[in-house]
Amino acid sequence: LGDAAAAQRLALPAGRRAGTSTTRSAILEVARDAFARDGFDGTSIRAVARGAGVDPALVHHFFKSKEDLFLAAVAVPINPQALLAPLLAGDIEHLGEGLARLFLSLWEDGAMRLQLTAMVRSSLTNVAAGALLREFVSQQLVGRLALALDLPDAPLRSTLAGSQLVGMAVVRYIVGVEPLASAPVETVVSALAPTLQRYLTGRI
Amino acid sequence: LGDAAAAQRLALPAGRRAGTSTTRSAILEVARDAFARDGFDGTSIRAVARGAGVDPALVHHFFKSKEDLFLAAVAVPINPQALLAPLLAGDIEHLGEGLARLFLSLWEDGAMRLQLTAMVRSSLTNVAAGALLREFVSQQLVGRLALALDLPDAPLRSTLAGSQLVGMAVVRYIVGVEPLASAPVETVVSALAPTLQRYLTGRI
Repeated sequence: LGDAAAAQRLALPAGRRAGTSTTRSAILEVARDAFARDGFDGTSIRAVARGAGVDPALVHHFFKSKEDLFLAAVAVPINPQALLAPLLAGDIEHLGEGLARLFLSLWEDGAMRLQLTAMVRSSLTNVAAGALLREFVSQQLVGRLALALDLPDAPLRSTLAGSQLVGMAVVRYIVGVEPLASAPVETVVSALAPTLQRYLTGRI
Repeated sequence: LGDAAAAQRLALPAGRRAGTSTTRSAILEVARDAFARDGFDGTSIRAVARGAGVDPALVHHFFKSKEDLFLAAVAVPINPQALLAPLLAGDIEHLGEGLARLFLSLWEDGAMRLQLTAMVRSSLTNVAAGALLREFVSQQLVGRLALALDLPDAPLRSTLAGSQLVGMAVVRYIVGVEPLASAPVETVVSALAPTLQRYLTGRI
């Protein structure tokens, strides 16, 4: 069944006659509001469907899970689960280095950098976008790292690591302060790795 | 001589008849453009005066030095020189802890936090403001720290420390990601101090 056909079939009787992309956009708009207002845990697919005037099955048709809906709503251009899984499956003593390398590789990619920059900028200037980013960081990054670490203070550890990564993004990539902006990737990885490792598994 | 009288006396013959605050604002506006376009080193008091249509002596009357003019132009609510001097005069082995404590004390102050947040936000969304912040960080923070450190890679070290501080500001104070946002100040100082110390004087 194609998207358009499915959308037609699942739209509520009183529903819109708009095309697939319009319906998908309407769902995302409602979801964005809901996640920003009620957080990840306080938002249900059912409530989003109701807000968009469509059947919950249609939301499921477009987005496989609440996580997928969330990622699409905040327009995060990465899938943290897919990225973090290999890191978290590896040697925990090299987590800091792996995380530094992964983070820099994302920001070194020109197209990705543009998208990530837009995300950071909007989250700092728009209250709703800020709430979405907060939810994203909490759920997708801190939550996963904390779970994998299984240490006391794991959530605090994860946000500390996050603070160093966000600061690196701002200073090196978004504002571009020299000489950090032009430093070789390996120099930055070497500098960050012990910081991240200590925050995640060391003495804080 | 009062500000108004001085302004009147020093204004160029062809100049504006506007009051002191208007003249001061005009100078700041020209300075802001100049610093953003030409950087700190490339901007002269003479050029700013010319751009504002006033005598250089009038610029000196309002702002004691180019540093003062710069700080007023970027509207930075702190004087880095005054803040950093006691730190840099103290024990270099406790620089990390002192810097962490100083930074947090600024952000813990409600009124100061508002001003600093506005500064960070505008620098991330406005190209000119971003250039001003870059100049400010380079000249006033990195420059002073690097000079005081007298170590190889001192500018890189200073920007690394800056990246951690900026990230802490964004994650703890501006976006407010938990549990870091509510962690006690001393917990955060303890976590940051070794990071800053290593960036500034340790092995990177």
